[in-house]
Parts: sequence; structure tokens; C-alpha cells
Amino acid sequence: MLTKIELDAWKATTPDTENVEVVNRLIDQFGLSQMKKEELDRYDHHFFRRKIIIAHRDFGIVTERIKTKKPFIQMTGVACSGPMHMGHKMSIDLFLFLKKMGARSYLAAADIDAYVSRSDKTVPSLEKAKEYAVDNITDCIALGVDPKDIYAQSRKEQRYYEFAFELTKKFTFNTLFSIYGEDYDPGKNSANMLQYADILHQQLREFGGPMPSITGIGIEQDPHARAVRDIAARLPYNFVMPSFIYFAFQQGLQQGKKMSSSDPATAIFLSDTPEEAAKKIRNAFSGGRDTLAEHKKLGGIPEIDRAYQILKYHHPDDKYVNELYDRFKSGEITSGELKDEAIKFIGEFLKKHNEKAKRARPIAEKIVHGR
Amino acid sequence: MLTKIELDAWKATTPDTENVEVVNRLIDQFGLSQMKKEELDRYDHHFFRRKIIIAHRDFGIVTERIKTKKPFIQMTGVACSGPMHMGHKMSIDLFLFLKKMGARSYLAAADIDAYVSRSDKTVPSLEKAKEYAVDNITDCIALGVDPKDIYAQSRKEQRYYEFAFELTKKFTFNTLFSIYGEDYDPGKNSANMLQYADILHQQLREFGGPMPSITGIGIEQDPHARAVRDIAARLPYNFVMPSFIYFAFQQGLQQGKKMSSSDPATAIFLSDTPEEAAKKIRNAFSGGRDTLAEHKKLGGIPEIDRAYQILKYHHPDDKYVNELYDRFKSGEITSGELKDEAIKFIGEFLKKHNEKAKRARPIAEKIVHGR
Repeated sequence: MLTKIELDAWKATTPDTENVEVVNRLIDQFGLSQMKKEELDRYDHHFFRRKIIIAHRDFGIVTERIKTKKPFIQMTGVACSGPMHMGHKMSIDLFLFLKKMGARSYLAAADIDAYVSRSDKTVPSLEKAKEYAVDNITDCIALGVDPKDIYAQSRKEQRYYEFAFELTKKFTFNTLFSIYGEDYDPGKNSANMLQYADILHQQLREFGGPMPSITGIGIEQDPHARAVRDIAARLPYNFVMPSFIYFAFQQGLQQGKKMSSSDPATAIFLSDTPEEAAKKIRNAFSGGRDTLAEHKKLGGIPEIDRAYQILKYHHPDDKYVNELYDRFKSGEITSGELKDEAIKFIGEFLKKHNEKAKRARPIAEKIVHGR
Repeated sequence: MLTKIELDAWKATTPDTENVEVVNRLIDQFGLSQMKKEELDRYDHHFFRRKIIIAHRDFGIVTERIKTKKPFIQMTGVACSGPMHMGHKMSIDLFLFLKKMGARSYLAAADIDAYVSRSDKTVPSLEKAKEYAVDNITDCIALGVDPKDIYAQSRKEQRYYEFAFELTKKFTFNTLFSIYGEDYDPGKNSANMLQYADILHQQLREFGGPMPSITGIGIEQDPHARAVRDIAARLPYNFVMPSFIYFAFQQGLQQGKKMSSSDPATAIFLSDTPEEAAKKIRNAFSGGRDTLAEHKKLGGIPEIDRAYQILKYHHPDDKYVNELYDRFKSGEITSGELKDEAIKFIGEFLKKHNEKAKRARPIAEKIVHGR
């Protein structure tokens, strides 16, 4: 019998999604669906072509809307509990792609959520959560998100808050404790109320009415997806069951650590300078061998090489990325040379991003503080 | 050892507060304070003179503010889960009196609370809760409440909702389950978040800052008072601990039943016609004896007579009420004659009230629906 893979939406444990068997077990265990080849082919983005999107729930409904050029909703969020890193950038890249595909787009800055669900050490006050909200929204705008598509949880319409309270009537604590485990607390419960409202409220009559919706999440967040689908079915609004697509888990730069906003060495932040990023990549875990001779003989292991992963997850050019894969795997190039490629790519990206962020900040301030 | 008196804030069990010993035990058990004679004397209202207000928590702080003519806050709520009856009227009478004493006054129509915390049978939808909100606010305005002092939970400032979520960070489920018992559920938790926010949010900087506040509640609602004081102390806002005064329990018109919006025979509703009210009083439980001869000989028992209670709780004239007490207790007047007095008083009150309510309704509609 296969061991059950324990995933905890709050602790964000890290399954090895580079491993196909692990992915298949997760899909099986959670009742997710594999992406079909025709779906992977339909979407012209490297997330689909490179199987960085590994599974879904009801994505077919959204595909059908795109095919028939009918409107659909997409929703994503930024956590407001620290600076954004390259892992977070993936959600925004997907968001920008789905917007191009015609989605009515909503990006929530989860400022209240961040304060009530995180430790005092991470987010000591609401003010701090709002500082992070400004930072995160700044990055989103710099990445290309339309400011009109962004809202902060603390600055919504009354109906949104009413709805967040309303939906709790359909839950029991037994259900919530069984989904979220023993560490569940009133603050996390509040965060959930807001997350469920973030995902569902656009389907209320006041916001446009029932419509298919899609959200991209990490596979470890599936408990939230199950909970929000459970509640969607029991509310009296004829909601279309929200769809989800699941990202593979982009590992931290250091072996055995996930990307973390509170541990700068584990991830490249969107606010890093090119020099800071270069240093982090130099120190990152590599798939090279212990000696050059061994590397030339055996070849590298791109699947575990963090410089390669950066390029695989973020560089848009398939030909370039595939060639690097082959040349590293054959031992033709060293991990140092692979890191040079990642450093060059990330450096150019960050230089432009930092400039755009400067212009974006006043707009982000206005979204969070209304002035 | 005295038996512990079990009170449940949700079930609203009914202690016999006409019995001084029961009142003393409750005060002792909950750690409440007796009203001091000087306090009872200071307030020129029959609630104080007749000891209808039986206990308090920190009322002295508010008395001090009144003495020194400094501002203080008062807050009360209407439940929006059915029509208002004469029991509810007492909160509003106290509210009007405290407004005259200089209180900054806030009256919350608990429309979201009503939907999320009540059974589907009582409040089947948010729309129904808002209908009740219009009804309840109509009655409050007709009783004399300034419409500017009234708000509906569903139509507040963003900061109010943010605060309702925020305060949950300071609670544990252990605390909440121990205060509210096993029937506690996510809907009731939402109702509590809003109630705590209703009582505390006026002390936020955005709403005026820390200041003594007073709320009159039924003694069976003390678990809420304890919970909100607990949270007030742990929030980072230097809140003044909110004060409470406790009403005696006005019993239902039928023996063994509490006044209930869903059981018309148990209470006189503010929307009743004088004729409907007269019929209810005729059928009410009386403190008269089985035969006239016995009544003349032994005298009536005003303490259990519902017609007498109506006059005691609502008629402003001490001399009139005391005389009726004496004449009924001595057997000089029968329960039928006592009922005639109550019918006359209530009939005149309702006739005027119904006229005022007609004029108040459009204002109430505007408060709830914004149009």
C-alpha cells in the first residue's frame, strides 16, 4: 500500500513534484485530474508545455468557455506576509496569461488574512500586513497586472464582508477541524472565511452572477480548494463549482528548504538587486558532480539543479531551456556555467522589474490606503 | 452548597429574577456587582428605582463620567430575528434614558448575526434578516431613537469588518467552547465576532478612541460580556474595559414560557394592535386566586402576575404602580381588574406607537437598504 502523503495547507510541506510517481500519488489521493494532452497543447505557455501545471479540478469547464469565447472568472491572491519571491511570481505569470485568454480577473491582496492567520513574529500588526500588501501589489503591477484588477481585503464592498460571514452558516467545526487539523484556530478560521469569499464572491449577483472560475494554487493548498468547493455547493446562489489548476512545487534554493519570505537565502525576491540574486544563485544547490572529471563523465542532474529550475519555471524560450537541459545532463556544461545563464537571465529581469516597481509603488499605496 | 445556575447565552434559559435569592446567587456566581443604593438613587428612571436593573460590571466608571459631565459611549442592539416585543422595549427605554444622560449612542441592527446564528426555521435567509431589521429599526425610531444613532451590521465601514476579523486572532477555540458550550458552531462564531465588534469598535481611533462604554443586557447574556471584556484586554488599543448593566428577566405571558418572537401568545409585540394585546393580556398568567372569596381573603400575588409585571416594567408612574401592587396584594382588586389597567395602558401606548411606526418605516428602510 502506498503511504499517504500528508499535506498541510498551513505548514506548506513540500512534496517532490519533480518526481512523477509522487505527482501521480497526490493526484490519486486527492481525487484530482491529470491535465489532458489536448489541454496542455491548447495553452501556449511554458507552464503547460513543461508540465509545471500538474493537475486540475474541473479545468474542462474553463477550457470550454475559452474555446467558445465566453466570459469566465479568474482569481488569485498575494499573501501580504512578506516580500514576494520567484515562487509567487508563477501565480502572477499564470494570471497574466489567463487575462490574455479573456478572464475577468481579480487579484486579492490578503492583508487581513495575513495578520489573523500568521504568527506575531511574521506579521506583528495589521499595519505591517498592509506594508506587505503595498510591497506585493507593487510587484504585481510591475509584473504587468492591471491595477484595476487588484483589491485589498481590507478595502472591499460591504457585500463581500457580509458574504464572508454568511458562508460560515453552512460549515460545522467538525468539517473544518477535519480539513485543517488540530492547529486550527479562530484567526485561521477568519482567514479562511476571507479566502472562500475571495474565490466565490464574484459569482454573487451583485458582482456579476454565477460563472466558471479558475484559480492556480500550489498542490499543498488543495485542502482550501476542497473546502471552498464544499461550501460553494451548499450556498443558495447556484454557484458554478470553482475550478483549480495545480502548480508543481518550485523548490527552495537550498537543499531541504522551501522558498520562504522569512529566509532570504532560500529564494530570489522580486525586490532583490541583480547582485543579491547572483550571490544567491552562486550559493544555490546544484546538480553538478563533485569533481569536474566526474561531471564530464556522468553528466549533471538538471532535475535537482536550482539554476536549471529557475530557467525551467521562468524562462519563456523552450529551445534555449531544452538545450541547457541536454548540455548539462551530458556534462558538456558545468553547474557554474549553468548558474551563469540563470544569473544573466534573472539579472536582466530584476533590473527591469525594479525600475517598473518604482513607478508602480504610488499606485499600490492608493489601492491599500485609498490615498 | 448552592446549585450552580446554568445560563446559556444562546438558549436564553430563564432564571427567576423576581426571587432575590436567585439574583444574589447569579451575582455571586458570575462575579457581578450589586447596584449600590447611591447609584440606584442617582438615576431618575423606574428601571433603577424598581430594581429592574439588578447588577453590573464596572458601572462605576460610567457613573463617574456622568457625574463629571464627560463623554461616554452606550451601545445596544436589536436582534433582527423576529418582531420586537415588550421585553426588547426595555433595552430601548434604557438607551433613550442614557442618551439623555449624555451618552454617545450606537444602536446595532444585528442583521448578519441574525442570519448566521439562528436556525433556518427562524431566519431562513439574509433577506428575511433584513426585513426584520427594517421592522426592528422602525420600532426603535417610533420609540424615540434618533435614526442617526442606528446602523445595520451589513452596512458599516470597512474598518468595522476588518476589526471583527482582527479580534479573532486573540482567541482560542478552547476559550470559545468553554464560554459557549458544545453547540458552538461557525455561524455562532461569526455572530460573536460581529457582536464583539459592535461593542468595541467605537473605541478604535477611527471611531473616536478609547472611552468608557455601557451596554444593558439580560443577565443570561453575561457569557458575551465576559468574552468581550476578555478580548478587550488583549487587543493592542488601550480600550477601556466595557461596562455592563443587567436587566431582571421579564417573564413570558404564559407560565413557564419565555417571551418569544416565534410564539405570539408569550409576549405583546410592538406591532400588535390594542385589540390583539388586550386578548393576550386577558389570557396571561395571573397571580389571582381560584375563587373570588379566596382572593378577597388571601390577596393576589403580584410577583407572578403578568399584568402587574407589564405595569412594573413599563409604566413610568411609581405612585400608580405601587398602589396597584398594594391593592392587588390585599385582595382589594381582582386579577381581572388588574388586567383592565394593563390593557388600558398598553392599548394607549400601542395606538400611538403604531402611528409613529408608520412614519418611521421609510427611514428604517433607508438605514438597511441605503434607499
